[in-house]
Amino acid sequence: MALLVEKTTSGREYKVKDMSQADFGRLELELAEVEMPGLMSCRTEFGPSQPFKGARITGSLHMTIQTAVLIETLTALGAEVRWCSCNIFSTQDHAAAAIARDSAAVFAWKGETLQEYWWCTERALDWGPGGGPDLIVDDGGDATLLIHEGVKAEEIYEKTGAVPDPASTDNAEFQIVLTIIRDGLKSDPKKYHKMKDRLVGVSEETTTGVKRLYQMQINGTLLFPAINVNDSVTKSKFDNLYGCRHSLPDGLMRATDVMIAGKVAVVCGYGDVGKGCAAAMKQAGARVIVTEIDPICALQALMEGLQVLTLEDVVSEADIFVTTTGNKDIIMVDDMRKMKNNAIVCNIGHFDNEIDMQGLETFPGVKRITIKPQTDRWVFPDTNSGIIILAEGRLMNLGCATGHPSFVMSCSFTNQVIAQLELWNERKTGKYEKKVYVLPKHLDEKVAALHLGKLGARLTKLSKDQADYISVPVEGPYKPAHYRY
Amino acid sequence: MALLVEKTTSGREYKVKDMSQADFGRLELELAEVEMPGLMSCRTEFGPSQPFKGARITGSLHMTIQTAVLIETLTALGAEVRWCSCNIFSTQDHAAAAIARDSAAVFAWKGETLQEYWWCTERALDWGPGGGPDLIVDDGGDATLLIHEGVKAEEIYEKTGAVPDPASTDNAEFQIVLTIIRDGLKSDPKKYHKMKDRLVGVSEETTTGVKRLYQMQINGTLLFPAINVNDSVTKSKFDNLYGCRHSLPDGLMRATDVMIAGKVAVVCGYGDVGKGCAAAMKQAGARVIVTEIDPICALQALMEGLQVLTLEDVVSEADIFVTTTGNKDIIMVDDMRKMKNNAIVCNIGHFDNEIDMQGLETFPGVKRITIKPQTDRWVFPDTNSGIIILAEGRLMNLGCATGHPSFVMSCSFTNQVIAQLELWNERKTGKYEKKVYVLPKHLDEKVAALHLGKLGARLTKLSKDQADYISVPVEGPYKPAHYRY
Amino acid sequence: MALLVEKTTSGREYKVKDMSQADFGRLELELAEVEMPGLMSCRTEFGPSQPFKGARITGSLHMTIQTAVLIETLTALGAEVRWCSCNIFSTQDHAAAAIARDSAAVFAWKGETLQEYWWCTERALDWGPGGGPDLIVDDGGDATLLIHEGVKAEEIYEKTGAVPDPASTDNAEFQIVLTIIRDGLKSDPKKYHKMKDRLVGVSEETTTGVKRLYQMQINGTLLFPAINVNDSVTKSKFDNLYGCRHSLPDGLMRATDVMIAGKVAVVCGYGDVGKGCAAAMKQAGARVIVTEIDPICALQALMEGLQVLTLEDVVSEADIFVTTTGNKDIIMVDDMRKMKNNAIVCNIGHFDNEIDMQGLETFPGVKRITIKPQTDRWVFPDTNSGIIILAEGRLMNLGCATGHPSFVMSCSFTNQVIAQLELWNERKTGKYEKKVYVLPKHLDEKVAALHLGKLGARLTKLSKDQADYISVPVEGPYKPAHYRY
Amino acid sequence: MALLVEKTTSGREYKVKDMSQADFGRLELELAEVEMPGLMSCRTEFGPSQPFKGARITGSLHMTIQTAVLIETLTALGAEVRWCSCNIFSTQDHAAAAIARDSAAVFAWKGETLQEYWWCTERALDWGPGGGPDLIVDDGGDATLLIHEGVKAEEIYEKTGAVPDPASTDNAEFQIVLTIIRDGLKSDPKKYHKMKDRLVGVSEETTTGVKRLYQMQINGTLLFPAINVNDSVTKSKFDNLYGCRHSLPDGLMRATDVMIAGKVAVVCGYGDVGKGCAAAMKQAGARVIVTEIDPICALQALMEGLQVLTLEDVVSEADIFVTTTGNKDIIMVDDMRKMKNNAIVCNIGHFDNEIDMQGLETFPGVKRITIKPQTDRWVFPDTNSGIIILAEGRLMNLGCATGHPSFVMSCSFTNQVIAQLELWNERKTGKYEKKVYVLPKHLDEKVAALHLGKLGARLTKLSKDQADYISVPVEGPYKPAHYRY
Repeated sequence: MALLVEKTTSGREYKVKDMSQADFGRLELELAEVEMPGLMSCRTEFGPSQPFKGARITGSLHMTIQTAVLIETLTALGAEVRWCSCNIFSTQDHAAAAIARDSAAVFAWKGETLQEYWWCTERALDWGPGGGPDLIVDDGGDATLLIHEGVKAEEIYEKTGAVPDPASTDNAEFQIVLTIIRDGLKSDPKKYHKMKDRLVGVSEETTTGVKRLYQMQINGTLLFPAINVNDSVTKSKFDNLYGCRHSLPDGLMRATDVMIAGKVAVVCGYGDVGKGCAAAMKQAGARVIVTEIDPICALQALMEGLQVLTLEDVVSEADIFVTTTGNKDIIMVDDMRKMKNNAIVCNIGHFDNEIDMQGLETFPGVKRITIKPQTDRWVFPDTNSGIIILAEGRLMNLGCATGHPSFVMSCSFTNQVIAQLELWNERKTGKYEKKVYVLPKHLDEKVAALHLGKLGARLTKLSKDQADYISVPVEGPYKPAHYRY
Repeated sequence: MALLVEKTTSGREYKVKDMSQADFGRLELELAEVEMPGLMSCRTEFGPSQPFKGARITGSLHMTIQTAVLIETLTALGAEVRWCSCNIFSTQDHAAAAIARDSAAVFAWKGETLQEYWWCTERALDWGPGGGPDLIVDDGGDATLLIHEGVKAEEIYEKTGAVPDPASTDNAEFQIVLTIIRDGLKSDPKKYHKMKDRLVGVSEETTTGVKRLYQMQINGTLLFPAINVNDSVTKSKFDNLYGCRHSLPDGLMRATDVMIAGKVAVVCGYGDVGKGCAAAMKQAGARVIVTEIDPICALQALMEGLQVLTLEDVVSEADIFVTTTGNKDIIMVDDMRKMKNNAIVCNIGHFDNEIDMQGLETFPGVKRITIKPQTDRWVFPDTNSGIIILAEGRLMNLGCATGHPSFVMSCSFTNQVIAQLELWNERKTGKYEKKVYVLPKHLDEKVAALHLGKLGARLTKLSKDQADYISVPVEGPYKPAHYRY
Repeated sequence: MALLVEKTTSGREYKVKDMSQADFGRLELELAEVEMPGLMSCRTEFGPSQPFKGARITGSLHMTIQTAVLIETLTALGAEVRWCSCNIFSTQDHAAAAIARDSAAVFAWKGETLQEYWWCTERALDWGPGGGPDLIVDDGGDATLLIHEGVKAEEIYEKTGAVPDPASTDNAEFQIVLTIIRDGLKSDPKKYHKMKDRLVGVSEETTTGVKRLYQMQINGTLLFPAINVNDSVTKSKFDNLYGCRHSLPDGLMRATDVMIAGKVAVVCGYGDVGKGCAAAMKQAGARVIVTEIDPICALQALMEGLQVLTLEDVVSEADIFVTTTGNKDIIMVDDMRKMKNNAIVCNIGHFDNEIDMQGLETFPGVKRITIKPQTDRWVFPDTNSGIIILAEGRLMNLGCATGHPSFVMSCSFTNQVIAQLELWNERKTGKYEKKVYVLPKHLDEKVAALHLGKLGARLTKLSKDQADYISVPVEGPYKPAHYRY
Repeated sequence: MALLVEKTTSGREYKVKDMSQADFGRLELELAEVEMPGLMSCRTEFGPSQPFKGARITGSLHMTIQTAVLIETLTALGAEVRWCSCNIFSTQDHAAAAIARDSAAVFAWKGETLQEYWWCTERALDWGPGGGPDLIVDDGGDATLLIHEGVKAEEIYEKTGAVPDPASTDNAEFQIVLTIIRDGLKSDPKKYHKMKDRLVGVSEETTTGVKRLYQMQINGTLLFPAINVNDSVTKSKFDNLYGCRHSLPDGLMRATDVMIAGKVAVVCGYGDVGKGCAAAMKQAGARVIVTEIDPICALQALMEGLQVLTLEDVVSEADIFVTTTGNKDIIMVDDMRKMKNNAIVCNIGHFDNEIDMQGLETFPGVKRITIKPQTDRWVFPDTNSGIIILAEGRLMNLGCATGHPSFVMSCSFTNQVIAQLELWNERKTGKYEKKVYVLPKHLDEKVAALHLGKLGARLTKLSKDQADYISVPVEGPYKPAHYRY
């Protein structure tokens, strides 16, 4: 795909796979709107006052139908938006087309190369001569990373004249990042500083990105305020858990049509994502084995009737392996060699280094047979036995299926809208320093409340007397900060 | 699609969507083989003796990857095979291509018109001048129906010279059947008699087809022996139950991406299919309401914590409706008008008359918006509210997804192979009269046994003493005929 | 306990533990009536016409609260009743007291010796000089057995003058049976013949008793008609399955207070009882392993995510063992020696020979520590490691808890009432020969229907058109005989 | 029961129901030890160094078998212990007897009056002239309350000479508290001050007690350091959740033998306790309806397929009602009047004011029929319809069954031991101020780790490289403080 920016008739930039899919995307968008009451409520509540009037928002987050409803919620509130995906396989091309045609500048397609991925990210951050975005919606932290690395490089360049050397790292992806920054330095040695200066803040979607932010906060290197959306209860305990419970079997079925009942499924990691995955596999009739490092999570798995063992214990008897850890090097090529023929190996954690794809790709004599896009059989030369890798080791629910369903994403994305509003509204008050914040509980409860009506639920109301008895306001928030749900 | 028969270089006839998908089909076939231990065992056990040498087998059964493994098991045992699908939407085009290229005459593609459907059925039954097939593998009974109706028409024609009048029926599909028979009479007034005379028997796959057979047996009109494969335990209590438990959510997810958790799902009918569907919905986090006519099945639903109500009670509050009854007129257009906006309505029973598609299509002012193939939003003019119909009211798991997974189909299809072998081996012994038979229990148990190893199971062996104590042979069968499992 | 028959003020015979518990029994009986709509409907429907007027009914069936409601239904319909329990531990003494005081002659208490058990059985069958009962309600077939063995002995005695020799058998219990018969011969050498001649028939409650009946039918030795109540769908698929799902954890909790979550539970046998037990253990958070001889049942277990192994594979790692097979010698003392310290071993099948209690009791040096009645720790001398045996190897749900709950027993017992009515009403028509019968499906459906209202269910009604389409009457029955539910 | 303190031969004080049950208690204690690996590990790890040498510990916590193992762990570590129960129905008399005979001063029996209850509490706090205990193990906070109220009264008395007036409150229980304090003032006006001065701190077991502590911390009235054991993950997410999942059905079954399957169960509150209760009811086959005030918890319930309504919506159609809220006035007498005949109403929250027992007891014409202890049927005069109240509205799992099983209590109580050690070891360092603390995460993880081996689990170990990648120590703790599990 030639990396040329295109323009709509109205002059808005984009780069998508196939603009003719815009109508299809629009139809699915309309379906999704009915399933996303939180976002639609935001449009109703905030739309008339146009709170984002004048705000430029850059998003780096899976360009799906659900994200499209988020984007159009941001624009309905007055924002201008540029968007890229945060995963090379996660874009739904019809969603990208609909948004590119109707609402925002989109740079995303399913099946980007890493080179293309970072080009898209750069495009989404590039708002022209006036600097970058006012706000970032980030997922995994790549947009945030690029700015931080850019600023760091510009500082070194200013002091020493040295530019980043892509050859200084083994990591293929980081080489690309350094190249982009190096090339940027040539055209504008203050590019990332300008971005940083303009930026009001970022709201981060996922566990992995949040970890990076807290690390930067600890190191004192965080350049702008950040809201940790992931740790809203209505995000991490819903999207991560119930979303994956839905999308793991969806991805497995679409990619392999395999019968889950009767199989042995190994779920590596029993955090929120792992809990959702294990529940899904158990419910579908699989026998589930969990691997864990944390004794508390391990004990939770046991209480649900799941077996807790090490990967080594079960590597040769299981049928399905799912990594959910957020850590790296979970399933190595040497593990894969011990697996049964046609064992399925997939990852639903944010990054693709949970599975040792590099080890697999470079294993002497290994043969890759692509069954269909995102479903590959890798055959080892000695045994002639193969394993099935989904989505090339990346997020299988987005690579092989369509990610999480609209309803649960409505919870997550309503948090995003509220976080963006919060950053923007307080941009001049100094409320938010260069730190990581979570949303206050009353907003978390509000997000939940917006999603009850659609499911026909009726809440009980506290009397004043009862509220006093348990020392909470009648209208909430109802729980202390440390409450675990 | 022009209805012209094509030929492979080896001269075998076929009509499929796209022969270039044959390689893709072959890859998926190879994956499926690993998941179908029963069929692969048949190849190993019976292949060397070529028991089907000289047998012509016609199949009318969803032309999927799993069926492809069945077909190649039949050919591996020596048979010649011609095949069509038994549903206009159920063909997987890559499976059809692979089989057409490599193994058998296939007439099937996804998205046939009814006209095309019956043309394919006729092609599959047409073995040239020497009469029809020796054996039929039927699913729903359409191949069997055509022969029975053909013979009936030929008898009338012989006696009275009258030919069938398509205008004599309102049923659009039956008009096509009559037309085919009428046209056949012109070219060969003994065509179906020749078929009948040659036919050794039929093995029938599904509840609906079996009902038709028993009806014909009661009426004394059955023209050849039939084996009821559906009521093998390893078929009806596995494929119908666990197959649907897998494929209902699969179809829902692929068609609509809707979040099942939190929704109200109405399952009409709580037979084996309904039990699988209700279990799937419950496990995915839906609240399930069952409708039933049979008090025993209703009480079973209640024991599982499901609510039992009438459709009328819940029509306006539910989100997902699934028909599984095998009966007709379950959800009428007047019901659909009362549903919530974007309620999903689908059928997983054999025939498409469970949902009143005709009533919907002819409703004044109704508007059909095709989101994507097999997913339509129908909007009523008065309310501007719409419902989502999957697979045009036909089997949604085959129309919107890929049907049941290989492993459970291996159980069903191993029964088919055994039934076909039984009919063929006993073709001259008179063992099977013009009646409907079920396979003996020891074969049923054998089918199950062939599927245990793949799942790592180890059976306990009875001692002679224990076997005597409960009055069964050490090697089985272990249960009386009336045992319900 | 001195075996002396006592009499109420009204002159009715009884022998129970403690008549002062009658009030308590009555209160629980009244609670149970609300939970047993089927039996209460029988009282309403049939009570006024007193169909059992003149009928003597002997019951040998666990003397629980639920059975008490059955007994009072029989008396409400006009019968005279004598009752004993069919298990030495299953009597609820307050239930026995209430019935003895108010309604029928009862001979039963919790913790009978085997000697006492058979004395009670004999008392229940002894209606005085005029012969035995007209009808028997049997559970496990001990009352039926006694009559059959008695008749056999009387025939030999008549021919040869020989009386049964208790020393001719090793089986301690059968020695008692022979002694009773021998002693009976002395007082009346036609006692059992008279019983046989009067007897209209028996209705049998459970799988084990039914097996005995079919065996006698095959051997041609069955002396009177029998109705197999066990295989009514509303019995075996409800009581056996849902009853055990309820009462297994109940028994485990009352006997041991052990936490089930996290434990490994081995369920031996995956029939209806085993399915209920496995479901209960899985739901409570145990990891369940099934042992099976039947490949079909094994495959069902696998489809539910349960592991299928042999006892040997898991004997040393599991925490809870439950036998449900109806066979003997399932867990032998050599297995028990390999178990973990404080492994729990229990039986929920009808007879106590599933667990090798004799092997355990006679194991050299073994020590029995009674924690409380029905809960014993047996310590092996070499390892000093112990296992926990519940209810001395007998039905643990009745020995350690109160058996199945009222609602599900109402299904079973309504079948019993209907079976007894059927036998009695047809006693002169010759409808029932000396064979085993099951109730017709329309009565089975009726039993279910009587239980729906209590649970708030609403059935759908077939239209005439729909009924014709699937070839069933509008009012049912709705399924063919072979339907498995 | 005459309130006279008795003494063992060794001179230790006690007051229990029946000392002859001590042997039985000892046998059950020995079984429990095998199920409580955390406590037994504490004995092994800390026993030799006798860290509690010289410490006086008073406990106010359900005097069950599991608590007995806790007490003997404290004494094994060198402590002297006095104990009372924190609920009038929760004592297991055999446990109390065994401990009273062998290990500690116990004042507790099942079925105390409120008067007796507070007498026991006072006895447990009374260590003689030298002041009170060094440490308190509290559950619900009654021991802590007594001291705080006592100190308050002494201060007023010192200033004004006024003594507390029991007539100043309507609350019957608080009248007793005031009477005790008033009487104490007469004998020693510094009694509670001495206690306070000696006290090192309290560790509190449950949500309700913790709420009281935080309230006192906010008000600045907390008199000594407190460790909040409840909010250790290994307590609140295990005991509260999995404990109640086990003990709710246990209590229901023992109290009523009711069939849970098919029933409608209303769970008021969906916190940890409510989640466990709802899961238990759902798994047992009930249809579960949740009432909630908190939209987040409500949305969680919906995601599990549970219906969320108000009590008013369902009061007349449900069969079982369980309160789990920690709030008051959840089910009022006017609600009860609308319920179905024999609806079961019970509470599993700490205090008995969730159910309006006072309203029920004083309802004109209401009739109480005691089925058996802790199971009462209350009949309303107008309808003659009754409801079943369990445990007089108090904790039904402890009143009607035996509370939570040993394994999960081992988690909770290991936290207690660690908390007590922490308070004692740091008693002179000033580490703990007059505030509420939670245990650090590494201790929480340790508690979990101690319970894995018993369940056969094997943890995965992080490599150094992986640990660095996610920024945690190789040996943990593995999660940030805000992690919700």
